[in-house]
Amino acid sequence: MNSSIKKIVYEGKAKILYCSSNPKILIQHFKDDATANNAEKHAIIKSKGILNNFISEYLMSKIEDNGIETHFIKRINQREQLIKKVEIIPIELVVRNKASGSIVKRYNLKESLEFTDPLIEFFLKDDNLGDPLLNETHIIEFKLANYEEIKLMKSLALKINNILQNIFRNIGIELIDFKLEFGRVGDDKNKDKIILADEISPDNCRLWDKKTRKKLDKDIFRKNLGNLIDGYQEVLTRLGLQIN
Amino acid sequence: MNSSIKKIVYEGKAKILYCSSNPKILIQHFKDDATANNAEKHAIIKSKGILNNFISEYLMSKIEDNGIETHFIKRINQREQLIKKVEIIPIELVVRNKASGSIVKRYNLKESLEFTDPLIEFFLKDDNLGDPLLNETHIIEFKLANYEEIKLMKSLALKINNILQNIFRNIGIELIDFKLEFGRVGDDKNKDKIILADEISPDNCRLWDKKTRKKLDKDIFRKNLGNLIDGYQEVLTRLGLQIN
Repeated sequence: MNSSIKKIVYEGKAKILYCSSNPKILIQHFKDDATANNAEKHAIIKSKGILNNFISEYLMSKIEDNGIETHFIKRINQREQLIKKVEIIPIELVVRNKASGSIVKRYNLKESLEFTDPLIEFFLKDDNLGDPLLNETHIIEFKLANYEEIKLMKSLALKINNILQNIFRNIGIELIDFKLEFGRVGDDKNKDKIILADEISPDNCRLWDKKTRKKLDKDIFRKNLGNLIDGYQEVLTRLGLQIN
Repeated sequence: MNSSIKKIVYEGKAKILYCSSNPKILIQHFKDDATANNAEKHAIIKSKGILNNFISEYLMSKIEDNGIETHFIKRINQREQLIKKVEIIPIELVVRNKASGSIVKRYNLKESLEFTDPLIEFFLKDDNLGDPLLNETHIIEFKLANYEEIKLMKSLALKINNILQNIFRNIGIELIDFKLEFGRVGDDKNKDKIILADEISPDNCRLWDKKTRKKLDKDIFRKNLGNLIDGYQEVLTRLGLQIN
C-alpha cells in the first residue's frame, strides 16, 4: 500500500493515523517532527520517527506481556505499526516519579525532587488551551470520563509505571516521568473498555542515565542539549533493539 | 487600643491581622484596598473594608448558626472583628455553581454554564506562582493537608454553598462561585481541628442580581463595570444590614 493513497484519519504533531483495510485497525505512522512548548518550537529530526516506532513497539509489547491491553498490534515497517482503532479519551495522564518540567515551574519545586508516591496528573488534551491541568471533578463534569474510568486509568498508570521503571532500571536509566493516553474500544454502541493508546517513547518519557544524569529524551531538543538522535539511539541500543 | 501600636501578625492584600491581648485571638482589620489580576490592578476604594466587615460578620454568623465552626468571634468596630487564631492551610478552595472568571478561560467554557454538581477546585495560595490549580494528589504530596482533611474541607464547602445559596436566593441574588480558606486550631502540639477562616464577602464571591444579571461583587472592579461600592452596598442592604 502506497502511503500517498492511504486515507488520513488523524494527524498530530508527531504521528499520522491512516485507515487500513480493516475498519477496526489503523496504521500509526511516526513522523520526524519534534515540537516543544506547545509547538512554538518545531524541527524535523531525521529518523526520530523510526527510533520511536521501534522503542514504542518494544515497550507496548512488554506492557501487554504484563497483562495490560494496549492498542498496539504489530510493527509493519520502519515507521509504521498496526493499532486497534480506539476513541481517544482527550486526557493526557502524566505519571511523575521525580519533579522535572512543567511541575517544577508551576509549584516552584526543586528539580528532581523525589515524590513520596508516584504523582499522577491529568491534563486536557487541547493545544489551543495549552493542555490545562484537570482535577477529577473537572473530568467528570466535562464528561471526559466517569469515576470508574478515572480509577481504572490511575491504577493502570501506576502498574505501567512499575513495568517501565523495571525495564529502564535494568539498563541503567531512571524513569523520571511519562505521559499516557487511553482510548475506548468496543462495538459502535458500547465503547466501554479502556486500553492504553498513543506511544511510549523518549518523546513522552523523561529518561536520565542513572550514573551521568544525562538526558536521553525530548528534553535534549526542548533545552538544546545536543543531538536528540544520540539520546534516542542510546535508549534503543540499551533496550537491546536495532533498526532493521 | 490605638491601631498604631497594635502588632501586625500578617498583612494581606485586603486585610491586616493584629495581635490582641489574648494569644488565641486576633483582630482582623478590613482595608479599603482592592486588587485584581494577582495584584496587577490595585486601587483604594473608600469604605469597601467597612462593607466587607459587616457582610462577612453576617455570613460567618449564619454559617455558625448552621453548625459549622468558623474563626469569627465578634465584630468590634466598623473595620475590625475578633477572630480565633488559626494556622491557615495555604489552599484557596473555590466552589463554583456556574462558570465565570478563570475557569471560563482555562477550559474555554461558556460564561455562566451551570455545572451538574457544584464544582470544587483547590488552588495553592501563592501569589508569586499565580495561585496554581492543585489536584488532591498534589495537596497530599506537598503536605498541605491529608486525605481526611481534604474530604472534610470539601464536605464543609458544599454545606457552606447550600447555606449561602439559600441566603442569597432569598434576596434575589445568585451565588455563582466563592472562595474559602480554612485553618487549623488546637493546642500548640496538636493543631488538628479545621475551621472556616478568612472572610466571606463580595470580594471573594460572585454575586449576580437574579433578574438584571448585574454583578454585585469584585468583578465590578476587575472589569470596570462601575462603582464597586454601589454593588457591595446593595448586597448589604438586601441582607437587611446597615453600617452603624
